[in-house]
Amino acid sequence: MNHDQPKDRIHLTVHEGDRITPVLASRGDTLLSALRAKGFGITAPCGGNGTCGKCRVRIVGGPPLPPPDALEHRLLGAHAAEGERLACRIRLEGDLEIALPRHGTAVIVTDGWLPSAALEPLAVAEEIALPPPALGDQRPDDRRFFDETGCSVPPGLLRELPLRLRRDGFRIGYVYRSDNRDVIRFLAPGEAASVRMLGMAADIGTTTLAAYLLDLRTGQRLATASALNPQRTFGADVISRIEHAESRTEHLDELQRSVTAALGSLAGDLVREAGVSADDLVCLTLAGNTTMMHLLAGLPPGAISRAPFAPASCDALTVEARFLGIPEPVRPDALCVLMPSISGYVGADIVAGILATGLHESGDRNRILVDIGTNGEIVLASGDRMYACSTAAGPAFEGANIHCGMGGVTGAIDKVRLERNHDGTAVLWTAIGQDRPRGLCGSGIVDTMAMLLEAGVVDDTGAFADDPSALPPELAARVVEYERWKAFVLVPADEAAHRSPVLFTEKDVREIQNAKAAVRGGIERLMQKAGLRPDQVSELLIAGGFGSFLNIDSAFRIGLLPEALRGRTRPVGNTAGAGAMMALLDARLPVEALRWMDRVEYVELSADPAFMDLYIDAMMFPEA
Amino acid sequence: MNHDQPKDRIHLTVHEGDRITPVLASRGDTLLSALRAKGFGITAPCGGNGTCGKCRVRIVGGPPLPPPDALEHRLLGAHAAEGERLACRIRLEGDLEIALPRHGTAVIVTDGWLPSAALEPLAVAEEIALPPPALGDQRPDDRRFFDETGCSVPPGLLRELPLRLRRDGFRIGYVYRSDNRDVIRFLAPGEAASVRMLGMAADIGTTTLAAYLLDLRTGQRLATASALNPQRTFGADVISRIEHAESRTEHLDELQRSVTAALGSLAGDLVREAGVSADDLVCLTLAGNTTMMHLLAGLPPGAISRAPFAPASCDALTVEARFLGIPEPVRPDALCVLMPSISGYVGADIVAGILATGLHESGDRNRILVDIGTNGEIVLASGDRMYACSTAAGPAFEGANIHCGMGGVTGAIDKVRLERNHDGTAVLWTAIGQDRPRGLCGSGIVDTMAMLLEAGVVDDTGAFADDPSALPPELAARVVEYERWKAFVLVPADEAAHRSPVLFTEKDVREIQNAKAAVRGGIERLMQKAGLRPDQVSELLIAGGFGSFLNIDSAFRIGLLPEALRGRTRPVGNTAGAGAMMALLDARLPVEALRWMDRVEYVELSADPAFMDLYIDAMMFPEA
Repeated sequence: MNHDQPKDRIHLTVHEGDRITPVLASRGDTLLSALRAKGFGITAPCGGNGTCGKCRVRIVGGPPLPPPDALEHRLLGAHAAEGERLACRIRLEGDLEIALPRHGTAVIVTDGWLPSAALEPLAVAEEIALPPPALGDQRPDDRRFFDETGCSVPPGLLRELPLRLRRDGFRIGYVYRSDNRDVIRFLAPGEAASVRMLGMAADIGTTTLAAYLLDLRTGQRLATASALNPQRTFGADVISRIEHAESRTEHLDELQRSVTAALGSLAGDLVREAGVSADDLVCLTLAGNTTMMHLLAGLPPGAISRAPFAPASCDALTVEARFLGIPEPVRPDALCVLMPSISGYVGADIVAGILATGLHESGDRNRILVDIGTNGEIVLASGDRMYACSTAAGPAFEGANIHCGMGGVTGAIDKVRLERNHDGTAVLWTAIGQDRPRGLCGSGIVDTMAMLLEAGVVDDTGAFADDPSALPPELAARVVEYERWKAFVLVPADEAAHRSPVLFTEKDVREIQNAKAAVRGGIERLMQKAGLRPDQVSELLIAGGFGSFLNIDSAFRIGLLPEALRGRTRPVGNTAGAGAMMALLDARLPVEALRWMDRVEYVELSADPAFMDLYIDAMMFPEA
Repeated sequence: MNHDQPKDRIHLTVHEGDRITPVLASRGDTLLSALRAKGFGITAPCGGNGTCGKCRVRIVGGPPLPPPDALEHRLLGAHAAEGERLACRIRLEGDLEIALPRHGTAVIVTDGWLPSAALEPLAVAEEIALPPPALGDQRPDDRRFFDETGCSVPPGLLRELPLRLRRDGFRIGYVYRSDNRDVIRFLAPGEAASVRMLGMAADIGTTTLAAYLLDLRTGQRLATASALNPQRTFGADVISRIEHAESRTEHLDELQRSVTAALGSLAGDLVREAGVSADDLVCLTLAGNTTMMHLLAGLPPGAISRAPFAPASCDALTVEARFLGIPEPVRPDALCVLMPSISGYVGADIVAGILATGLHESGDRNRILVDIGTNGEIVLASGDRMYACSTAAGPAFEGANIHCGMGGVTGAIDKVRLERNHDGTAVLWTAIGQDRPRGLCGSGIVDTMAMLLEAGVVDDTGAFADDPSALPPELAARVVEYERWKAFVLVPADEAAHRSPVLFTEKDVREIQNAKAAVRGGIERLMQKAGLRPDQVSELLIAGGFGSFLNIDSAFRIGLLPEALRGRTRPVGNTAGAGAMMALLDARLPVEALRWMDRVEYVELSADPAFMDLYIDAMMFPEA
C-alpha cells in the first residue's frame, strides 16, 4: 500500500479528548474514510453519503477549508458556526488538525452494514485510592471498597483484595461488570488507565465462525478472523450435529470442546493480528443459531429437532470463559455473553441481526429481515409487533442437493447472465478464482435459474421447454438429457475443470422451486399474519453471506422475493456478527433484547395450513 | 446407659402430623425431657421450668393422668379443656400416647439456652409436573420451569433439566434456595417428598469445633458432635494462627484445608450417629470469631492483628461447599452460610450469640452479653442501639499463664470453696474425673481467687497477707514461698498427681487481676457509652463454655462482674452454636443480622482513655 507519493501525503492531527494521534492520509480521500481506515470510531450510519449528519468533527488547525456547502449547513445547523464539519464532506487537500467528539457512541463497520452503538461495554476499568483504615474507621476491606466504588467483590476475588490494598497503599485498579457492578478482576495502580480493554464478538455459524476484536474504550475494530466450524466433522448441518450430540453423552462434550477450542484459537489469531495482549481481552459476545448456542453452552439440543421443538434454553447467559471451557489465550475469567434466542429455529444470530438492523425500532415502518441458509429465518416488524418464522429451505441455496452445486470457493461459478445482442444469445458467467469452473455456488445457482427462466428454457411450472428447437440455437444446443433428467449445459466439458461439464438439471429446478417456495411462503405468511400487503412493506433486508453475493434481480426473477418489494430490497451483510459487536460495545442491548423479544410472535410453520397454501402457490415461477 | 429395669420403662407413642414414632422413656422423667432426649423439637424457652407455657402437647391415649395443676390451667387457658398439657409438668408414670403441635416453629436445644426459630430454611425441596411442550407452547425448558415454579436454573444445572424432564415425563423435583429462588439441585419424581432435608450448624472455636445436625423440615436436632480444632497445631490462639497464615502463602491454604477437613469429618460423624445420608445434607451455617471465619474462607487475616485492625471482610457469605473445600461426605453443592462478623474482634460467633439470646430484640430492656475467652467480647443492647467491644482478657481464664492452670479436662480442679464450721476452716475442691488433681481449669481458678479473697489470704490490692499467722492455722500453713513468689498450696504434693502440689501464686493473682479488669472495664465502658447505671441493666448473660462452668458467685466475689448485677446474671451456654442452628432453621436471620448490625456501635478499646481509667479501677478486688 506504499503507492502514495510524498506530495500526495496529508498529515492529520487527531485530538480525541486528551489524546493526540498523528495520522497519514492520502490527498483526495474524504476525512471520514481516512479516519476509518486508521480505525477511529466515528458514527456514520448513512455510510458516508452525507445524509445522516452524524460524522461531525471540529476543525482546530490547518489551512482554511472550502466553506460548508448547503447540505452541511442544513445538517449541522448552528454547529457549523462553531467550526464543526461533516467528515464525509471534507476532501483532503492539505494537512489538517481536527478534534473528534467525546466518545459515547461508536460505529461498527461490517461488510455492508454500519450500525452504531453507544459505548457501554460490559467490562469497565477504574482505579481508586481508598481512605486507609484507622482506629476510627475499621471498615472491612470489602465494605470499604464497596462504599467508595459501589462495586461488590465476589467470593473468589476477596482473597486478593487485602493483599493488594496493603501492598499498594490502598490504591487499587479494578475491572467491573457494568450490569451488576461485580468486580471481574483487580489491577495494579496505574494499570486501569493503561490496560487495553478488548472485546471479541463472534458469529458462530454452522459452517463458518467469524470473530471480531474491538477496543471497548473507543469502539474501534482492531482485527477480524474467521475459521471453519470444526464441528462440521460431526455433521454438515444442524440436524446431523444434534443427532451426533444425542448419540452418546460424551459427544455433547466433544461438540462443545470443538467449538470452544476454535474460539480460543480465533482469539489468538485476533490478538496476534492486532498486536495486543490476550490478557486484555475482558469480554466476548457470542451469537449463532439456537443449536450452535446449545452446543456452545453444553446444553442437550435434542428437543430442538423433534416436535414440538422446545429448546433447553433461549435465555441470554453471562458466564466466565472457564465455564464454557474456552481455552488459552482467553483468560478463564473473561466474561462471555451468549446472546438470547427467540425459539429453536430463530436463534441468537437473528436476535443479533435484529439489533444490527434496528428492526425492533422500526417505528411505523414495516420492515422484513430475511436470513437464507439451510433454514430461512424471517422476521417482520410492524408497529410495535414483530413476527418471526423459520422455514425449511433446505441446503439448495448453499449448493447442496444441486447436481453441480458447491460452496463459494475457488472454481465456483458465482455469476451467470444471458446476453442478447446482434450476434445472438450468449450465456456469460464468472467463477471465483482463476481456475476452470467446477460447479455453482449459491448466487450462481440463483442466477442460472433466473437465466433459464428468462431464456424460456424452463417455463413457469419448472418444466424444461418441450421443444428446444423453439429456443435460440445457442441455447437449444445446450439442452441435453442427463440420467433420465433434462439438463442445461452451463459450461461444456472442454471449458470445465476435470473435463466435467457444469450442468443444471430438471431435478435441480425442483430443488430450487422447493427452496424458494419455502422462503417466499414464509415471507408471505408473516405479511399475512401482520395484515400487510407487499406495497406496505418499506424495506426487505437480506442478511448473511448468501444475501451479500446474491444477485437481487435474479432473486426477484425466480420469485424468491415478492416482486412488489423490488427497489426496497438490499443486502445487509453479516448482521449476526454486527449485532454481536454492538452487544459487545453496549452491554445493555442483550438485556433489552430479552424485553423486546417478548413482542416477537413466533409463527410455527410446520403445522400451519395457511403457510402450506402459500408454499404451494410459491412453487410456480413468475411468468416472464 | 442400660440401667433401666424393664418395669421402669415407659412406652411413649408420639404423633407428629402423619408420622407416628415409638419412644422408650424412663419412669419419673418429665415428658419434656423424655421427648428432648430423643431429639424431638419442642419449644420451651423457659428451660422446662413451667413458666413459658410453650411445651404444649395433646394427650391422645394411655391411662388417665393427674389433672392439670393451677399453673398449667393458667398457662393453657381454654386449651386445657381440649386435652392439651405442658410436657414439662407431666411426670411419666405409665405408657402414654401424645400428639405434638404442627410444626412451624422449632426449638433448638443447646446446653443451657433454648431459643426458638421459625422454620424457613435456606434449602427447600419441591416437586412439580410441568405442562409438556406443544406446538402451541414451545417455551424453552428453563423458561417453562421458571414460569411454573418461580425458580431460576443456574448455568451449571441447565444441562440436567432437559434430560430429566424428558426422562420423567416433565415431572421434576428440585431443591431451591429460599432467598433467591435459585435451584440448588434437581431430584427424581417422588424424591422431594421422601428426601430428608438436613442441615449442619457449626461453631468454629479457636480450640473446639461443635457441630449439630438438624432436620430442616421439623427443626429436630438429630445429632451433635465435637472435635478439637486441628488448626491448633499451628498455634494455640488467634494471634499465632494469624502469624502462621502470614508467614507463607501456602500456610493460609493449609489452615483453611485443616478446618474444612475437620468440618467434613464432623459431618461424617453426625450423619453416622443419626443414621442418615450425607447426600441429604443441603446446607451448613458456620459461626466463629472473625479470624476463624477468615481462615475458613481462605481470606488473609493479617490486618486483624495489627492496628487499626481492619479485617478483609465481615460480610455474610453464601457459597458452595466446593468453594471452601469442605470434603466428602459433604456434597460439593451443599450451601454454606458463613455468618457475618461485626469487627475484627467481635465475630460471627457473637453475632450468632446475639441471635440466640435475642439481644437485638431486647425492646426497652438493657441487656448485656459477655463471652469470655482469650478475648472477652461484650455486647450491650439498650433501646434501639447496641454497643460492642472486645477486651484483651488474655488466656488466664482458660488456664494459660497460670502456674498450675490447665484446660477443663480430667485432673483439673473445677470447683473450690472454703468451709468454715466448728472444726475450723477447710478448703474443699472437686476435680474432673477420678484422678488426683493436676491443676486448675478456668472455673477452678476463679473459685480459688474468690476463696483466697474470702479467706483473707489475699487482700483487695491482690497482695498476699503480710502476716499469715493472723489467718486460721489451716490456711496459714498453706501459704508458702515459691520461686520468689508467695503462693497458696491448694493441694499438697501427697494428694496431687505426680506428687506435684497444686499452687496458686502471687503472680497468678496478678494475671487474674489483669484479666478480670479487662472484662470488667469493658462492661463498665459499654454501660458508660450507653449512659446506663448498673441498676438499669436488666440482664447479664454469660455465654460460652467458661460461662457455663463458672461459679457466678465467685465471679462477683473477684469483681469480674459488677456486684449490682448479682441476681440478674445467668449462663446461657454455647450461644454461637445455638445462633448457628437458628440461622440454619431460619435463613432470614443472617440477612436480617446484616441490617441490625448497622445499629451496633463497635467501641475500639485499644486507644480509648476512658476504658483505661475503668480498667485501672477494676484492677482492685472488691473488699470483703
